[in-house]
Amino acid sequence: MYLSKVGKKMNKMSGVRAIMTDIIETLAKAKDKHFYNLSAGNPVVLPEVRDLWKRYIRNLLDSDEFDQAFCRYGGSNGYVPFIKAVCSQYNKHYNWNIDVKNVIVGPGSQKIYYYIINAFSGSSENGEMKKVLFPLSPEYTGYSNQAVEYDTMISYRPKIDILGEHEFKYRPHFENIKIDDSIGVVVLSRPTNPTGNVVTDEEIKKIIEMAEQRDVPVVIDNAYAPPIPNICFTEMTPQYGDNVIHCFSLSKAGMPGARIGVAIGNERYIKPMQAFQANSCLHSSMLGQAVAAQAMNSGELEKISNAVIRKFYFDKKALALKTIEENFNPDIPYYVHKAEGTLFIWIWFKDLPITCGELYQKLKQEDTIVVPGDGFFPGLEHDDWKHKQECIRLSMTTSDDDIVEGLKRIGKVVGEVYGK
Amino acid sequence: MYLSKVGKKMNKMSGVRAIMTDIIETLAKAKDKHFYNLSAGNPVVLPEVRDLWKRYIRNLLDSDEFDQAFCRYGGSNGYVPFIKAVCSQYNKHYNWNIDVKNVIVGPGSQKIYYYIINAFSGSSENGEMKKVLFPLSPEYTGYSNQAVEYDTMISYRPKIDILGEHEFKYRPHFENIKIDDSIGVVVLSRPTNPTGNVVTDEEIKKIIEMAEQRDVPVVIDNAYAPPIPNICFTEMTPQYGDNVIHCFSLSKAGMPGARIGVAIGNERYIKPMQAFQANSCLHSSMLGQAVAAQAMNSGELEKISNAVIRKFYFDKKALALKTIEENFNPDIPYYVHKAEGTLFIWIWFKDLPITCGELYQKLKQEDTIVVPGDGFFPGLEHDDWKHKQECIRLSMTTSDDDIVEGLKRIGKVVGEVYGK
Repeated sequence: MYLSKVGKKMNKMSGVRAIMTDIIETLAKAKDKHFYNLSAGNPVVLPEVRDLWKRYIRNLLDSDEFDQAFCRYGGSNGYVPFIKAVCSQYNKHYNWNIDVKNVIVGPGSQKIYYYIINAFSGSSENGEMKKVLFPLSPEYTGYSNQAVEYDTMISYRPKIDILGEHEFKYRPHFENIKIDDSIGVVVLSRPTNPTGNVVTDEEIKKIIEMAEQRDVPVVIDNAYAPPIPNICFTEMTPQYGDNVIHCFSLSKAGMPGARIGVAIGNERYIKPMQAFQANSCLHSSMLGQAVAAQAMNSGELEKISNAVIRKFYFDKKALALKTIEENFNPDIPYYVHKAEGTLFIWIWFKDLPITCGELYQKLKQEDTIVVPGDGFFPGLEHDDWKHKQECIRLSMTTSDDDIVEGLKRIGKVVGEVYGK
Repeated sequence: MYLSKVGKKMNKMSGVRAIMTDIIETLAKAKDKHFYNLSAGNPVVLPEVRDLWKRYIRNLLDSDEFDQAFCRYGGSNGYVPFIKAVCSQYNKHYNWNIDVKNVIVGPGSQKIYYYIINAFSGSSENGEMKKVLFPLSPEYTGYSNQAVEYDTMISYRPKIDILGEHEFKYRPHFENIKIDDSIGVVVLSRPTNPTGNVVTDEEIKKIIEMAEQRDVPVVIDNAYAPPIPNICFTEMTPQYGDNVIHCFSLSKAGMPGARIGVAIGNERYIKPMQAFQANSCLHSSMLGQAVAAQAMNSGELEKISNAVIRKFYFDKKALALKTIEENFNPDIPYYVHKAEGTLFIWIWFKDLPITCGELYQKLKQEDTIVVPGDGFFPGLEHDDWKHKQECIRLSMTTSDDDIVEGLKRIGKVVGEVYGK
């Protein structure tokens, strides 16, 4: 059977996906066993949020707009009432001046990154090759397998700021980062999945300026950022600019199943993305866009983001940090990344005597599931930096009891591993 | 601004899209004018069908399943209850033996073709190039711009069977069609958009056999086929085989806005498509899948397809054929393609003294909008076959009055063009 070069490349799965498959199999094999599962990326169904969406969908069913949103084909840039709601939201909040022509809606933001990565980086017709730069590593693993070509992604080791006895923060290593003609596009998530890092306003401005000098777009993934869903626990302002593409999604605002991703930027970037979308998938599904437009315009989505979604994960994070502090042996050289946002807690075990993959296996024996960190370094695949083997990602999407008991078990196992 | 080779390729729009843009602008410029618009590809919102979907969505809102279908991420092969409903449907109808592993659901079937065309044709790692073969031309124009590489599509002139004084049918020209090692994948729609042709069971079997000898997959686009939506006016049986990938969509069953496309085939084809999807867009939206599963399992979707959707377009087609017969000067050498399915009527004006693009412009002057046929010959772009300039596509998605009056004006204008 023939698979093209593109087919073979897109057939490759990331290391994290192999772990996810292993987790699914582990859970399925031992159905009667209770696991302390701190691995899930699927957000929690929050009843208030779910009920809000049900209410708006019922309203749509009672309105003539349903025909347009469900029974008709739409435009390849997105559902216009939703695009307009997005523009109002950002213009109101951040004094931007965006218009319908600055927005494209895709079938999930994963697809948006696919358009961006393959249109703005990769080989040119004359054989030139431009790469995707991740200015800060670790970074979202989902970018890793997006390119239809091989070896198109690079990154640099970050600076590590030790903030306290057991806390640290990654920072872009500006002495190393080069944005020259070999770079096609810069991509970073803010807040960052998996670390919960929020690159500061100053850092992001510096990255944007560096890229602007070479006419390189900077793509900022706002999956967890304010104003929606605002799973962010520190001050941050989305920075707009002529070479900036802001992306966000409604997945963490309670509708991952609706697959709605948005990109906002200069028309010169939006237009080729729209053509890519028109040719490859016509447009994205519209019912979710229609109800989101209503909930954005009424202000309810923003309100519930702050009062319910943000609060839920803030409380989970606080519980996790407290549990770690109370249960991890302070003699273990562990460092929790400053937890500034996302659904995740990232822990670095300095000089861990085993790999994070081996730690994952040991924890599994104790019915505790985590995600080993080594899959979250896109662009650093060929760097044998030991740090990549010393981290784990914990998801705050399970019950309080499971978070507490899971973390206790992690503390115990890691203590044994260090002999402490 | 940098655009990669892929970005530039995907930035190109088809000729039909240019026409569509011209149509939208024409309609927008003269808002108060009434046009006889026989160009639209957007299916009609049929109240019975719309109400069925509303009812099923209301049921979903009242059920616990809503959480899974809207508030959670799903699997990259699709929503399992929907996949199971698809399997039952085809196994029951056609005695196939398909299982969950034989199905993938994408965000619209356009995307499914994108995976297929780019994974199963195009360049290999060692520089080999395999093409997409359209065994019958004219063919759906939406395939044209799907490949991320240039010049990857070929086709052959069809045989033209004159069936009556003013009726004809295209047939695959088996003396010309070669399926050798230069072919990666064979694609055809059945019934065919734009012509309404249904390639016969014998013809399709022959194509499948020819392809099987070279281990080439045959992709059959069932967008209008039975059992759903069954906009098909002749007997046809979907032919399964080890090298066949069947695709269908729910767009013509009343939910184009939900973007649900399905591929059914051997696991060796489905697996790389699933990986492509997992890497590039995670999965497709699920609410539409959830309600479609229910409506398929209850039998209601099939029933309404036959009783309402099929009947609606059958009646439109009958009206159009009658109007043509009564209003076109019989001395004009016009031939209507045997109207066996789809939303469309395809007319060939033999030896038309002007191009179909010029005819489109003349008809626009008479407030009548059609789609010129020359954009529907993917793979024959470099063939200057005069026939490509002699056809138009008419859509049956407008009112009876507009169909009648539009066709009368076409008859009049064409008469003038021929001087008859």
